[in-house]
Amino acid sequence: MSTETVATAPAVFSAKQSVSHPLAPLNASEITAASGLIKASWPAHTDLQFKAVTLEEPPKSEVLPYLEAEHSGKPLPRVSRKAFVNYYIRNTNKFHEAVVDLASGRVLRNVLLGPNFHAGGDGEEIMKVEQIALEDEGVKAEIAKLKLPEGTVIISDPWIYGSDGVNDDARMYQCFLYIRDPLNSAEADSNHYALPIPISPVITTEDMSVVRIDILPTGVDNTIKELEPYQIKPPNEYLPEHQKLRTDLKPLNVVQPEGASFNVTQEGTSSVLTWQKWQFRVGFNQREGMVLYDVRYDNRTLFYRLSLSDMNIPYADPRHPYHKKSAFDLGDVGAGIMANNLKLGCDCLGSIYYLDAVLSDDKGGVTPMENVVCIHEQDAGIGWKHTNYRTGRAAVVRSRELVLQSIITVANYEYILAFQFNQAGECNYEVRATGILSTQPIDEGVEVPFGTVVHPGVLATHHQHIFSLRVDPMLDGYLNRVTYDEALPMPRSDFNPHGTGYYVQETVIDQSGGFDLDYDKNRIFKIQNPAVRNPINGKPVAYKIMAPPFQKMLADKDSFNHKRAEFADHNIYVVKHHDDELFAGGKYTNQSRGGHGVRAWADRKESVKDEDVVVFVQFGINHVPRIEDFPVMPCEILKIHMKPVNFFDKNPALDVPPSEQSFNKSTLVSQAHQQSGAEATVGAKGEVCCSSKL
Amino acid sequence: MSTETVATAPAVFSAKQSVSHPLAPLNASEITAASGLIKASWPAHTDLQFKAVTLEEPPKSEVLPYLEAEHSGKPLPRVSRKAFVNYYIRNTNKFHEAVVDLASGRVLRNVLLGPNFHAGGDGEEIMKVEQIALEDEGVKAEIAKLKLPEGTVIISDPWIYGSDGVNDDARMYQCFLYIRDPLNSAEADSNHYALPIPISPVITTEDMSVVRIDILPTGVDNTIKELEPYQIKPPNEYLPEHQKLRTDLKPLNVVQPEGASFNVTQEGTSSVLTWQKWQFRVGFNQREGMVLYDVRYDNRTLFYRLSLSDMNIPYADPRHPYHKKSAFDLGDVGAGIMANNLKLGCDCLGSIYYLDAVLSDDKGGVTPMENVVCIHEQDAGIGWKHTNYRTGRAAVVRSRELVLQSIITVANYEYILAFQFNQAGECNYEVRATGILSTQPIDEGVEVPFGTVVHPGVLATHHQHIFSLRVDPMLDGYLNRVTYDEALPMPRSDFNPHGTGYYVQETVIDQSGGFDLDYDKNRIFKIQNPAVRNPINGKPVAYKIMAPPFQKMLADKDSFNHKRAEFADHNIYVVKHHDDELFAGGKYTNQSRGGHGVRAWADRKESVKDEDVVVFVQFGINHVPRIEDFPVMPCEILKIHMKPVNFFDKNPALDVPPSEQSFNKSTLVSQAHQQSGAEATVGAKGEVCCSSKL
Repeated sequence: MSTETVATAPAVFSAKQSVSHPLAPLNASEITAASGLIKASWPAHTDLQFKAVTLEEPPKSEVLPYLEAEHSGKPLPRVSRKAFVNYYIRNTNKFHEAVVDLASGRVLRNVLLGPNFHAGGDGEEIMKVEQIALEDEGVKAEIAKLKLPEGTVIISDPWIYGSDGVNDDARMYQCFLYIRDPLNSAEADSNHYALPIPISPVITTEDMSVVRIDILPTGVDNTIKELEPYQIKPPNEYLPEHQKLRTDLKPLNVVQPEGASFNVTQEGTSSVLTWQKWQFRVGFNQREGMVLYDVRYDNRTLFYRLSLSDMNIPYADPRHPYHKKSAFDLGDVGAGIMANNLKLGCDCLGSIYYLDAVLSDDKGGVTPMENVVCIHEQDAGIGWKHTNYRTGRAAVVRSRELVLQSIITVANYEYILAFQFNQAGECNYEVRATGILSTQPIDEGVEVPFGTVVHPGVLATHHQHIFSLRVDPMLDGYLNRVTYDEALPMPRSDFNPHGTGYYVQETVIDQSGGFDLDYDKNRIFKIQNPAVRNPINGKPVAYKIMAPPFQKMLADKDSFNHKRAEFADHNIYVVKHHDDELFAGGKYTNQSRGGHGVRAWADRKESVKDEDVVVFVQFGINHVPRIEDFPVMPCEILKIHMKPVNFFDKNPALDVPPSEQSFNKSTLVSQAHQQSGAEATVGAKGEVCCSSKL
Repeated sequence: MSTETVATAPAVFSAKQSVSHPLAPLNASEITAASGLIKASWPAHTDLQFKAVTLEEPPKSEVLPYLEAEHSGKPLPRVSRKAFVNYYIRNTNKFHEAVVDLASGRVLRNVLLGPNFHAGGDGEEIMKVEQIALEDEGVKAEIAKLKLPEGTVIISDPWIYGSDGVNDDARMYQCFLYIRDPLNSAEADSNHYALPIPISPVITTEDMSVVRIDILPTGVDNTIKELEPYQIKPPNEYLPEHQKLRTDLKPLNVVQPEGASFNVTQEGTSSVLTWQKWQFRVGFNQREGMVLYDVRYDNRTLFYRLSLSDMNIPYADPRHPYHKKSAFDLGDVGAGIMANNLKLGCDCLGSIYYLDAVLSDDKGGVTPMENVVCIHEQDAGIGWKHTNYRTGRAAVVRSRELVLQSIITVANYEYILAFQFNQAGECNYEVRATGILSTQPIDEGVEVPFGTVVHPGVLATHHQHIFSLRVDPMLDGYLNRVTYDEALPMPRSDFNPHGTGYYVQETVIDQSGGFDLDYDKNRIFKIQNPAVRNPINGKPVAYKIMAPPFQKMLADKDSFNHKRAEFADHNIYVVKHHDDELFAGGKYTNQSRGGHGVRAWADRKESVKDEDVVVFVQFGINHVPRIEDFPVMPCEILKIHMKPVNFFDKNPALDVPPSEQSFNKSTLVSQAHQQSGAEATVGAKGEVCCSSKL
């Protein structure tokens, strides 16, 4: 990286003296002020393409005293408010990183980033790339060889180019082409993924031109065949008007007659949520989308910051150009900017509160983002129950959850991302993967072991989704450690004469590194604060992390895929906190080379015992497509649980009011409601609530 | 086993000519007829203690033609109806197994079982054992040494004795003793598990007498100390009236204004459920509780029979007598007989239908079991979604689930057991573990690596819960195979020059055996019918089995625990179907020796390729107690998924009607509802349903 001038802009571009919380996202005037400061640092009429104008989070060392003052009602220390800016000189590959101080209007840093540092895509750019691919005469000439029916509409899906080290220093897009159903060309929502064609233009962003046109392999091997006239194939639409819909599903409404149990205090661009002893602040940025800060339960600190850090989706097909398909959906595009505008009654049930956000656009202006987070409560079934078999008395409570949900669309794919809290002190993170498979053309009758034919002529390649959740803990204070417990068999001895005994052994992680689950040892990772002890059993207060199993990166260790996805090789990374190390795959993932993410940070081998530690939790699926995943995929659900371990002095949900009919108002379905009840069962049902017999 | 007389009873005991479905549980008159036939086979006034009078399921070879005729509307073949009976000559250890033909009134089989075959407990017997333990003069003398406060109430929890090969051929119970809070002795629902005492009487069932009184170790080792005066300890109650309850939880009601979408046809003692293209028959028996038969989707056969087969809970403390704590909750007691009487508005939300059952009692009479299964629908969040980022149009459906739930109380512990079906062709099985930990006394200040102190003086020992779900498939026919897929890296080659490729390889299981998951290979087990091919991609129709990871049995291979829990050492057992092989741990688990369960069946090494196969799916938790699990444990949730793989020709939930506000009737929570909204956000929210922008 080479340092350029650090400019001070005219005061007119300064944001008004901010009263924002230090962790609140930039507001609209701060965004335009920051981009204005950068514009002013260049000669007039320099055309800048902004990639991000976002909060430069203050150092944790400044925020912690602020939070302490905030929660104890003391005078608030002043924390300077800064913006982080990424931009190009438009139509060049000159990529810059800048930090501006919003109060003083000073540009504190403004550097041209070196080779192999690229920004991700933005909406304007992606639309432009689509268009360039389709308008290129060379591309048109190739398409003509397919002799498509008159009026066929071609769709271009730009893909992040990926890295293979072969002439790929320039920033490029690889477009995959599809057609709409030729018999229904006017349908703008036709599922073009059912009709891929084997032509793939490559566009450089430097001058936005087509630099190469790849013809795609469609057989069992990497042979590239001459383009031939296209054989008409059937469509496969997902829209409801193309289905014979089920008619026997009756409504199920969630009704909250007294409203929701949560409270949202909007403080400018961030919101403070309180619900069932939980309290936290919600932010939202272009890259991560939802971020939770300062998470507390019953006034005890739990997490400084929680966010999805990144995800990587490498594909299995080793043939050019598919071998480069390895997206970082957060780093390459951004979970915030791709967030859906959620709609009442569609994306959640019950009493819903929506959060809005403001993000930047490519001109340094403001993109309003409405309804990007929905907040609601849900019933999660029985929370706990016990029946005394001697008396028949049952005690039962239901589990209520608070959900913060955001949905992102990444071209073909959707992710439904949710933080979930419950009354037992648990904080969970759920991902639902849905949307449409990324498809490619395949010849009739061909089978390959790296993908599934999901429609005539359509191959859905196997791919991994590897997510990294960033957990910055502060369990009763910010000096924490990470340990793991293992359950191990006792050797036979006088103490264990029958070979049945086992014990649990704790190992403390001293040094930063990557660590793996071992189900045969019931290995469980915990975040602990040994300085705070459970009042009953003296054990350190802790939260355990329960993540589902996943297959780690399959690409070999020397591959670009492996080098770039720095989080994809271990279940857990534990590192020492450093400001500005938020993204597990590095700050710049597009066409990256690796070396700047969590693996590199862990390699510093810093002490992480009773330090300010950060944990990256990896999870995912190896998606071997089924035909049932097409034309749109039923949600595949993944869930991380973080649960208290000796943090409280008893079940924290013990004080949840009992589950009673007067509160729940359920309805008895009787035989009378059945169409063909052959024999009624006599018996008094449902009159007496919540007693039970063995 | 020695064969006794096969008697024919007087016709008066015959059940009326039955019109029951061959898979319907015995009705009340069949139960009394069967026990009457057995009674009549003995001299008058012989006192029998019945342990089970249940349906002897007809051979599958007889049922399959019946089901085919039933579904095609053809004349139904006659299937003989039989009862299975287990009983003792009361106050002896003479344990019998019998089968009677209900139509003819003939006793077809009536044998005295040999040594080490014991029945489980029954309610009458368990109550009697409790009483005997407390009334024994020797026990009273030991208790007196504790010098408990005047009026202290002692509670006796009988435990299945377990097996260690040490003088344990007789059938016995080991009782663990507790006290109610001495300051609140009148509270019948006081949580005695918070106040264990170190005296443990052993009762033989032969003459129902105390044969031994164990004094329990309470230190770090197996030293047995002299009993000393009891030090008063605080109680730890779970009842709501002992808590300061939360007051800020508002009601959340599930309202189904048009009723439920399912239909139940009660046919005598079994019920046929139809819902969203699913159809199956529900039975209920003493041992397994809920059993599903003849499960179909859209008229295609999927499963012949689904049930929880058994569970084993071995404990970690190797010290006498704790080393014998290894319960088989289904085999030793029975999930059916322990089922809770579920109450409207307590155990489910929404429109609920309840199923009743009839089981036998210890006298051969009838025990009515009301509301043992509740049936309801639940919303399971978004089912699938896609937004076309070019047009902004979102298509989204919600996932509706049908739930059949049963809750069992096993002394201290509860299990919430549920089959769940959805519209994407998925059939899931969920277990929630809750209730109270099995506790034992521990000296103040002592820590042990095989348990957690959860209350002053109370140790909750680590223990495993290992479940076995029995899956008897018939995917498009009853000849199926089991395979597993693995995702493996491709070696580098001209085809895979960048080291990124991977492929999926299928292995067919030829021979019965136990098999394990391998997450590093993404190993996925599938049930397949290769005779039926997917119309689009030609792959065999299949369902995959997705089970969460669990640590297998920790007790060593030579231990009784390991020998007895025949399912606990592998994720999956695949065996050839044989009638009467339903229970993974063997038919008689109480004080068993092993050799009669699924491991033994697998050891026959029969061909299971394109045969009538049965799959036992194991799952569970190693429960290392947290203090948060006391005095009652927040549900720990485990879930098995069975999902179609190339079984359908596209997403089966494609025809679910779109998620729309007119149907869902959600409510917008506005700033007005917030107590302290500092800054309102202006913006039109929630007006237009189900379109979205990127």
